[in-house]
Amino acid sequence: MTQTETCTGQETLVFATSSAHAKAVELGKHVVRMTTIAGSGHASSGLALGHIIVELMYRQMRYDPADPWNPASDRLILSIGHAVPIVYAAYADLGGAVGNDPNNPRFLTVDDLWTLRELSSVLDGHPNPAEGFPFFDSATGSLGQGMSVAAGLALAARLDGIDKRIYVVAGDGESREGQVWEAADFIIDHELTNICVIYSCNGHGQAAPVSPQQYPEAIAAKATAFGWEVIEVDGHDPQQLSAAFEKVGAGGRPTAIVARTIKGWGVDLMRGKNFHGIPVPAGDLEKACAELDATGERLGAAPDGGMTPRPPAVVPRRRHAGPINLPGFQTALKRVGLDSTLKTKRLATRAAYGAALVALGDTDPRIVCLDGDVRNSTFAELFANEHPDRFFECKIAEQNMISAAAGLAAAGKIPFASSFAKFIARAVDQIDMASITRANIKIVGSHSGVSLAADGPSQMSLADVAYFRSMTRTDLGQGNIACHIFHPCDAVSAYRCTELMANIEGLCYLRTHRPKADFIYPFDERFEPRGCKQLRTGKHLTIVSCGLLLHTVLEAAEKLSEEGITCNVFDAYALPLDPAPIFDAARASGGVILTVEDNYIGGVHAEIAEAAAETGKIRVYGMTARRIPKSGRTAAEVFSHIGVGLTHIMKRATTLARR
Amino acid sequence: MTQTETCTGQETLVFATSSAHAKAVELGKHVVRMTTIAGSGHASSGLALGHIIVELMYRQMRYDPADPWNPASDRLILSIGHAVPIVYAAYADLGGAVGNDPNNPRFLTVDDLWTLRELSSVLDGHPNPAEGFPFFDSATGSLGQGMSVAAGLALAARLDGIDKRIYVVAGDGESREGQVWEAADFIIDHELTNICVIYSCNGHGQAAPVSPQQYPEAIAAKATAFGWEVIEVDGHDPQQLSAAFEKVGAGGRPTAIVARTIKGWGVDLMRGKNFHGIPVPAGDLEKACAELDATGERLGAAPDGGMTPRPPAVVPRRRHAGPINLPGFQTALKRVGLDSTLKTKRLATRAAYGAALVALGDTDPRIVCLDGDVRNSTFAELFANEHPDRFFECKIAEQNMISAAAGLAAAGKIPFASSFAKFIARAVDQIDMASITRANIKIVGSHSGVSLAADGPSQMSLADVAYFRSMTRTDLGQGNIACHIFHPCDAVSAYRCTELMANIEGLCYLRTHRPKADFIYPFDERFEPRGCKQLRTGKHLTIVSCGLLLHTVLEAAEKLSEEGITCNVFDAYALPLDPAPIFDAARASGGVILTVEDNYIGGVHAEIAEAAAETGKIRVYGMTARRIPKSGRTAAEVFSHIGVGLTHIMKRATTLARR
Repeated sequence: MTQTETCTGQETLVFATSSAHAKAVELGKHVVRMTTIAGSGHASSGLALGHIIVELMYRQMRYDPADPWNPASDRLILSIGHAVPIVYAAYADLGGAVGNDPNNPRFLTVDDLWTLRELSSVLDGHPNPAEGFPFFDSATGSLGQGMSVAAGLALAARLDGIDKRIYVVAGDGESREGQVWEAADFIIDHELTNICVIYSCNGHGQAAPVSPQQYPEAIAAKATAFGWEVIEVDGHDPQQLSAAFEKVGAGGRPTAIVARTIKGWGVDLMRGKNFHGIPVPAGDLEKACAELDATGERLGAAPDGGMTPRPPAVVPRRRHAGPINLPGFQTALKRVGLDSTLKTKRLATRAAYGAALVALGDTDPRIVCLDGDVRNSTFAELFANEHPDRFFECKIAEQNMISAAAGLAAAGKIPFASSFAKFIARAVDQIDMASITRANIKIVGSHSGVSLAADGPSQMSLADVAYFRSMTRTDLGQGNIACHIFHPCDAVSAYRCTELMANIEGLCYLRTHRPKADFIYPFDERFEPRGCKQLRTGKHLTIVSCGLLLHTVLEAAEKLSEEGITCNVFDAYALPLDPAPIFDAARASGGVILTVEDNYIGGVHAEIAEAAAETGKIRVYGMTARRIPKSGRTAAEVFSHIGVGLTHIMKRATTLARR
Repeated sequence: MTQTETCTGQETLVFATSSAHAKAVELGKHVVRMTTIAGSGHASSGLALGHIIVELMYRQMRYDPADPWNPASDRLILSIGHAVPIVYAAYADLGGAVGNDPNNPRFLTVDDLWTLRELSSVLDGHPNPAEGFPFFDSATGSLGQGMSVAAGLALAARLDGIDKRIYVVAGDGESREGQVWEAADFIIDHELTNICVIYSCNGHGQAAPVSPQQYPEAIAAKATAFGWEVIEVDGHDPQQLSAAFEKVGAGGRPTAIVARTIKGWGVDLMRGKNFHGIPVPAGDLEKACAELDATGERLGAAPDGGMTPRPPAVVPRRRHAGPINLPGFQTALKRVGLDSTLKTKRLATRAAYGAALVALGDTDPRIVCLDGDVRNSTFAELFANEHPDRFFECKIAEQNMISAAAGLAAAGKIPFASSFAKFIARAVDQIDMASITRANIKIVGSHSGVSLAADGPSQMSLADVAYFRSMTRTDLGQGNIACHIFHPCDAVSAYRCTELMANIEGLCYLRTHRPKADFIYPFDERFEPRGCKQLRTGKHLTIVSCGLLLHTVLEAAEKLSEEGITCNVFDAYALPLDPAPIFDAARASGGVILTVEDNYIGGVHAEIAEAAAETGKIRVYGMTARRIPKSGRTAAEVFSHIGVGLTHIMKRATTLARR
């Protein structure tokens, strides 16, 4: 129940108003003090949010600060992440729980605020749940991503049958990010009417005032055009805020509250000048606090000791789920009508991914799927057909798709998000942010590398392996790493790699291909993270490849064997990988390794070369895409164009084998 | 002059209409035939654009198909890149020039259309100017980027005093991409009223019909809310199209023409079914062409032999400019009031970048600068102050910033686009597309690595080096490569690296840092692409580092020397680099190299290890960020947190030196 519901008439409003002002002043002083002590931080943006945060965290949100893990809680996404000190102040005032263990929480006190931005503090410079601040669901601070995360949380709540609200606090300047409008479309498409976005329109960006395009009236007009319920308020007027929140969801549409706010509210010395991200100098600290007190007094602030949040509903806790085991490959193909390929022994890895996804969905209700208008290409369509309630069409908006996946993961789902590998690049910053959150998301890039051929480079991914691999040495503790890459060469391995991804806690990336490929593995072959497979043995050279191009490598090895040159051939289907078996084979075959990939550098070659360079004994040579590709009518033509065609491989292998 | 201007009254319109229908049918048949012959390609999306392309390329645009290099030409950005066959058909019909040499063009014929998507053809699967189709300014096909490129072209035209129009043809589903709305804001901010976007609203995405959020009325409402002049038309009605184009720019605002179109127009067998990206089967080819003829007949199509584009204005050609030489470092610092740092010998690399940018702007009028609301952090502000006409504030919208930079580059400018390195990740796909275009853009990421410290990981870049490095082995011919990275450790090298970037033709990436750093180099030191510098000599180990962390490495080396362990220390300020001097030093000091970086893997370590693994004699060990960072109050604390602190370096170096 809200304050306004507990009493009636004018008295209520005066009461609510005076206590809200008092709390805004109290928290504001904390914000000023904590940033001054930290020597950095965004006091002025936090002050702009004072009344909004008070209204949300003390009056509107149904949650228990002592149990932020409660799945029934209303959630707050601070999309304008740099304003976080005001949330820290409120949460400390409420004795909110921190830490990473729900069974062993610590309760924040106001004194903790003075540790802001310290290495040992849970109060990071921007919202960062993974470092022990579970009130948040997502790292924010790279702007414009919060609405998408909220959408993921709202989808999960619907699946779980939980009636909760997701509040997003965003900035005016932030609404320049296109992702905000991708999310606005998505939230309308999926009728997520329990989402309420509050735009804090303080009129200032970092470097300058915001553009007129981001004035409150412009944001209101845009949100209206996008189909949202729009309410404009004075962001420092508790009555207007309270009245606005009472209307949330009433119109059957998601709500945008466009709030005019004041950057540096209540502190004269912060106004007029650009105090973005700059704390009050220590010498001015008491003056600033006195100004806040005076502002409160002017507004009739009167403390109310009894401000407590509304309790959340009671719902069962999520239980820890065991490993997900898929049925046999043949069973899974039959399930989706692809069993004719069991005879032809030829199927695209993307199709096997689709079959695996359906089987995962059959097995575990946490599995959900998102796709960006290419589900008929990625084969996410199979899942959409079989589990329509857990499939979320994101249309052509990859940034929103990835952040929404992170929101779903925050609510305990295991989301698989697919598009062409090339278009996944659209969401690199969103993946970075999900990585900071340690979000359990699975990204699937189809049509990877250059084997798509005819469509040309705008549809091909060549830098994706280097990007995702960059995170594969980043330790998350407890044996986890920040990212696993899987790059299967055939349908059997694609099926099993998808299963592996579902069972790994954390970010995984799967590369699939458009063309059909012969089966390489028996139907019952097993795979593992960090694994690789030896497919041929030989005496003269060791070749490592992966994906569709591995078929060309095998063909080259076969032809070379006819010429008397025999090669070990390894399938590096996983990155990172344990290179020991590859090095063992290399030592027994001349000590030379050749890697072959149809992506740019930074992938398998780097993986093997970095490990080999520590031994100083094995020599490693890499073949990667040495040209920007163009259209060709066949994959073989484009492989050849970029320098990794059959004849290139044979020639290079021959040279190396004869050294 | 347009057709409608050459005659008067009803007769004109009938004439224009009948000839437009005839041309649309003629080109449509080419589209159907070329995609069927190619065995892939987007015939249906092309047919939807028939009348729009006829109106633009035969009637509205002022250009000479035989000279697409003419800087005065109106330009067409096909943002909906997959629809390109219709443009190829028109351009071939007009005998347009192709090839990469304006002095030696080849003129397209209709027979060339049957080479669509062949490896040797200039007719790539999606617009791809770099492969010899200079009618386009930018590779497209990853959707939603065209308006931003158009903005860059329009800004360049204004700087050059050229009155030309930039037309963008976009899709309805494509308008889901947030970047479209970033561009919409930017174009309004900069009053680029010579831009006209035509949305082809055919109602179909790839996987399904578009969302109601992308219906023509929704797009019109959104564009209106964003401040555009909106005209709704039937996209297959030549009269309505002609009338709409006559109004472009009249209202003093950019124009959005929202055109209802039919996917697969004129070919019954393509309608109703989802023919996205699927050509007509060979057996149906003649039937499809007959259907187009019948459609034309029904509409009164009558060929007009005299349809020719309007000629462009005559303006001087751009002249080839020589190398840009900057003044001395001291002179440049004085120019921007930073000369006090010449005595303290301490300045942030980001500040030196700003000084270099001003000096570049003083020296060469082609230098332009873009920034995303952080110019006071990146020091682009210095340029904005001194060369305001060539500075373009992009606000918080990095995707649009990078694509706009690509547009400026296409018009002969040398754009430097800056933001926090972390936020550059927002535009990876845009950088990919610019790379395909071979755009001459310079990207500057400030606050790179983790040395920003207190703000936490949402503001830190750790994967950027791996991403940009992935392109550094990609050969563009004539000695060029797809990307150069510069990562200076002090102000002197930052100044000179900025100069190097301006003189390299192609994509470059500069990493700068927030904290001040002591000068390491003398003011007159020279640097070069692929260079590195030896800063210390020693007998026991060779250490390679770069950027701000190099100062910690030097401190470690100094302390180690006091313990009797002497190290070679190299500054790897450039990637790629020639490792020969590093290897020479390593061979003379135990054959072991230690690399030290505050980013994830895939950077300097990969660079050195890959080269070393080919020799098989030098051992290389890497120290990189092994944890996801968090806030700390100092850079040293965060270096230590992620495993590259002073004591970590000393310990690892000691172990390696004593092996």
